Amino acid sequence: MPIGEREHRAIENLVYEWARAVDEGRFEDLAGLLVEDGEYKVASRYNVDRGLPLAVIHTRSRGQLRDRITSLRVANIYEAHCYRHLVSGVQAIGEEGGAFEVRSNYAVIRIMEHDGASSIFSTGQYRDSVVLEGGTPRFRRRHVVFDSKAIDTLLVYPL
Amino acid sequence: MPIGEREHRAIENLVYEWARAVDEGRFEDLAGLLVEDGEYKVASRYNVDRGLPLAVIHTRSRGQLRDRITSLRVANIYEAHCYRHLVSGVQAIGEEGGAFEVRSNYAVIRIMEHDGASSIFSTGQYRDSVVLEGGTPRFRRRHVVFDSKAIDTLLVYPL
Amino acid sequence: MPIGEREHRAIENLVYEWARAVDEGRFEDLAGLLVEDGEYKVASRYNVDRGLPLAVIHTRSRGQLRDRITSLRVANIYEAHCYRHLVSGVQAIGEEGGAFEVRSNYAVIRIMEHDGASSIFSTGQYRDSVVLEGGTPRFRRRHVVFDSKAIDTLLVYPL
Repeated sequence: MPIGEREHRAIENLVYEWARAVDEGRFEDLAGLLVEDGEYKVASRYNVDRGLPLAVIHTRSRGQLRDRITSLRVANIYEAHCYRHLVSGVQAIGEEGGAFEVRSNYAVIRIMEHDGASSIFSTGQYRDSVVLEGGTPRFRRRHVVFDSKAIDTLLVYPL
Repeated sequence: MPIGEREHRAIENLVYEWARAVDEGRFEDLAGLLVEDGEYKVASRYNVDRGLPLAVIHTRSRGQLRDRITSLRVANIYEAHCYRHLVSGVQAIGEEGGAFEVRSNYAVIRIMEHDGASSIFSTGQYRDSVVLEGGTPRFRRRHVVFDSKAIDTLLVYPL
Repeated sequence: MPIGEREHRAIENLVYEWARAVDEGRFEDLAGLLVEDGEYKVASRYNVDRGLPLAVIHTRSRGQLRDRITSLRVANIYEAHCYRHLVSGVQAIGEEGGAFEVRSNYAVIRIMEHDGASSIFSTGQYRDSVVLEGGTPRFRRRHVVFDSKAIDTLLVYPL
């Protein structure tokens, strides 16, 4: 594989940084992890496997993702909770024109604030394209492909 | 520890590749991750701790593992589902004669297709012996030691 | 980030070693992963966010942690069970005077011995300060910040 250790570590750190930003409630930091016209998409494995276009979230730039975050902060009504991400198996499986194709698995545990109940909220695979902009890794594309049809219809926080 | 960064990364990638192959349904790719006479065994912690020989799966070569996969594809009857592996804590804890002794933890979440129900299907430890064949890492031995007695008697997919 | 690959790998290995020691029941090995006057503390996110001092465990030296382990071995009464740690997203987020500030996420699955029931026992974040003593990484501080208020009041094993 043509990827060097330095690049691999930088990519891993990017993937982990996204998860930590969400878990720490720093949603405003997410847009900066994308390139300016970076895509962020959340869709079910069922739809993706069949080439169906429906997605739960689909933003095509930093600005669009920021809009989603603002709406989450000011408009959405939901019960207080937090996420805990487990991300494993970060692999760079290809490279083309300086963009690394990256895979990893995730499980998101959701913890409700009022009673502390913990449950597996979502599991799935990240399918990312990562570029290094002046040494800083960023997502050109981040596709979240979740496993279960049973995901809550309102996805409050990004996965 | 005598292990170099390049070897460590290669071992990690092998461990992650197994998990991803299972989760993506590429079961036919698993045999190639073993050496020709590689051993794959799945047994409970309860049995392993007591030196009891009973295993849920025990194959002693690529060919035997391929047989299991073929049987899973053509003969087994089971409800449609998929796995999602979380693998963490990959550590090389020893080396002898070019074989690295490797440990890691796993949790496998099982997602049923019909209703999307997600549950912790199995947790445990991988106890691997890994060799580098011309730079390519492969399992000489992969022992899956699972924690719970309550595992379903029919293990459909490899862990 | 000023951290080198060698240091990063050593820190990762320390974090994984703690988890493996607990999961394998080698509780006596934990104290050696701290520096002599190392701090180990387990507190809820709720309390930590509000600056409240209450902790479930708070030891300030190897000796104090050893006392806890001895008490767990000889005095506590509890139902037989084991833990399985999943630890992900190890990031070195800062360095000062040779001490690395490290973050990672964890989920601990608890498996009861009598019936094999598995459940998410605790999730949260490790907030560590790690120093390299003659090349050997050790925790100067290990703060476990757990997400849920619903943790069992008696925490038998360290997280």
